[in-house]
Amino acid sequence: MDNFTYYTPTRYIFGRGAEEQAGKLAASLGWKKTLILYGGGSAVRSGLLEKVKKALAAEGVETIEFGGIKPNPTDDRVYEGINLVRQSGIDSLLAVGGGSVIDTAKAIACGVPYEGDFWDFYCGKKIVEKALPVGVVLTIPAAGSEGSGNSVITRLDGHIKLSLRTVAALRPLFSCMNPVLIFTPPPYQTACGICDMMIHIMERYFSPTKDVEVTDRLAEGLLKAIIDQAHLVMENPEDYEARANIMWSGTLAHNGLCGCGRREDWASHFIEHEISAAYPQVAHGAGLAVVVPAWMDYVAGKKPAKVAQFGRRVFGIDIEDEHRAASKAVEMLQQFFKSIGLPTKMDELPIDEKIDIEQLVAHLHANKGAVIGGYIGLSADDTRAIYRKMF
Amino acid sequence: MDNFTYYTPTRYIFGRGAEEQAGKLAASLGWKKTLILYGGGSAVRSGLLEKVKKALAAEGVETIEFGGIKPNPTDDRVYEGINLVRQSGIDSLLAVGGGSVIDTAKAIACGVPYEGDFWDFYCGKKIVEKALPVGVVLTIPAAGSEGSGNSVITRLDGHIKLSLRTVAALRPLFSCMNPVLIFTPPPYQTACGICDMMIHIMERYFSPTKDVEVTDRLAEGLLKAIIDQAHLVMENPEDYEARANIMWSGTLAHNGLCGCGRREDWASHFIEHEISAAYPQVAHGAGLAVVVPAWMDYVAGKKPAKVAQFGRRVFGIDIEDEHRAASKAVEMLQQFFKSIGLPTKMDELPIDEKIDIEQLVAHLHANKGAVIGGYIGLSADDTRAIYRKMF
Repeated sequence: MDNFTYYTPTRYIFGRGAEEQAGKLAASLGWKKTLILYGGGSAVRSGLLEKVKKALAAEGVETIEFGGIKPNPTDDRVYEGINLVRQSGIDSLLAVGGGSVIDTAKAIACGVPYEGDFWDFYCGKKIVEKALPVGVVLTIPAAGSEGSGNSVITRLDGHIKLSLRTVAALRPLFSCMNPVLIFTPPPYQTACGICDMMIHIMERYFSPTKDVEVTDRLAEGLLKAIIDQAHLVMENPEDYEARANIMWSGTLAHNGLCGCGRREDWASHFIEHEISAAYPQVAHGAGLAVVVPAWMDYVAGKKPAKVAQFGRRVFGIDIEDEHRAASKAVEMLQQFFKSIGLPTKMDELPIDEKIDIEQLVAHLHANKGAVIGGYIGLSADDTRAIYRKMF
Repeated sequence: MDNFTYYTPTRYIFGRGAEEQAGKLAASLGWKKTLILYGGGSAVRSGLLEKVKKALAAEGVETIEFGGIKPNPTDDRVYEGINLVRQSGIDSLLAVGGGSVIDTAKAIACGVPYEGDFWDFYCGKKIVEKALPVGVVLTIPAAGSEGSGNSVITRLDGHIKLSLRTVAALRPLFSCMNPVLIFTPPPYQTACGICDMMIHIMERYFSPTKDVEVTDRLAEGLLKAIIDQAHLVMENPEDYEARANIMWSGTLAHNGLCGCGRREDWASHFIEHEISAAYPQVAHGAGLAVVVPAWMDYVAGKKPAKVAQFGRRVFGIDIEDEHRAASKAVEMLQQFFKSIGLPTKMDELPIDEKIDIEQLVAHLHANKGAVIGGYIGLSADDTRAIYRKMF
């Protein structure tokens, strides 16, 4: 087990009516004027935005709205938000939405007190030392941003999608999580979210670090629970209990719990980020459902042990031979993704153009270095082979 | 799933040399003068106390020592500590030890700013609103107090052992956890600690709340990891990796993770607290190894479902009939305790006198109410039957 620091000071308010507590939480933190960020019109149409604004107003917290944040969020909205905050005397940010809204809020939060370009943090030039406080009312469980110190933003110039990780500086101070608010996303979006959270766990699970039985067992337990509850949610989108289990799993998948004491992998995320940066119509979770089986099949050929363990403990595969158990694990993962309506091959993604693999590979390694990954290191030859496996 | 709040703002520094960071952590929190609490002489003999004092001195933090805190800690030392802190201008507490030392630190921490008797918090008369900050250097993984907001203290007058639970007020601000520091406790103490952490998980696992698959799977995963690593630790006390896995499990067992969204049980802890309060020579973990199989056998007779699930998922029992699977689970738990050298019957505990069951039952329900427990409610008739099963 590697040395580690684990610090997760987010206050989670979970359950029916959780969003109604946003006002009291904001006031208890001394917030006076808050930027409320949201995405499409669903937060408006459902009345959620109005409810949250009222909850803040009731506690004397002023609000300004900042809506229309799109999936795969981009730097233009971050610059716009930073300017707005600086001009309006805003002291805090409340994201009402999913990962894209929360990640935009975090980018603005660290950009406001920084004199340079906020992008410096994302491309690794600077470390975040100060940020405005961020709160969350979660409406899409997937990205896990409600409990993480991370944020992913795409720079429009060059379609560069980069992620920023902080130990604590960008962790939301509170996250209100009401499973009823996630009854509405359509089945495809729900499935994409389920895939995203599973892969957050697996990027930590597939580690070169040995003797990490505790986090292995936690990761396997979470994955089993998600697979089990996913079928219930797909069958009945208004199953409160299954939604609640999925929602909480999404947070634990990405708040660091499953990464304690181990080197992580993240190759699949980096490989996917190139796809959804080049083709923004591809949902991140759908991209991952295509990338991960190809990645897993490739690494199993070189180092099958952990893939076999994953198959045995998560899918109950009873095959002694390591290579065969690993192959079966890849097959069962693909089957599971298909069973909840996800694509598992590149031609099932909504991409009309001919995909230029060489460009994806070149971009990937230019952004992330000559070798990526933790479970095994992947050079350009490896990632090229993995992209090819997706067809 | 029930509504819940989850807030764990403790900063865990885990790994080799973790204790050396105590000074920097204290200074970063603005501590000027710190009371260092410890237990027996082992912290002195091993040089740990000196090392920690030096780390604080290097950062300009003054220290005063407060040693000799005994297992099953008592209120007399708490009063003594409160007086000392008030007279010395101490602004913070650093517990160097296990649960007894940390729990004493927490009792002093909430007692100092309170005008009345600190015992008011433990007997439920008052809620903790203010407390001095507490930090931890952990030397015994068992009680989980390094990550919890809880504390257990025995009042000498009447031998009343009561626990105090807070959401956040008494959570340590930081906990330094170096697995090397736990190489030294003797096998029996190690085994008691392992039992204690397992039961912390099981008190949450055995819940009347339904549809809590995520926390069920987390709890089962932790239990499997502990059982697996326990054998390694008992065979080789200096197995760093196994000690590390056990140490981190002890924290996660009791920081609230396994209790999210569910009513908890705690009957076994209350039943045991009466034993170790009346007979302080009984280690809490050893008492639990006797209590829990008896409790489990009793409740399995009335409500076998969860006991059977525990047996199937944690011990891999492959029996379809619920009652038989539950009986087998009790048997395997007892076997596991025996395999690591723990007692499982009352006559194996170090008690010379004749045990007065009626007095234990009377005390228990006077302290904890007419009905205790969550998985099923237990009246005096039930707890009497459970005490009898221990012989």
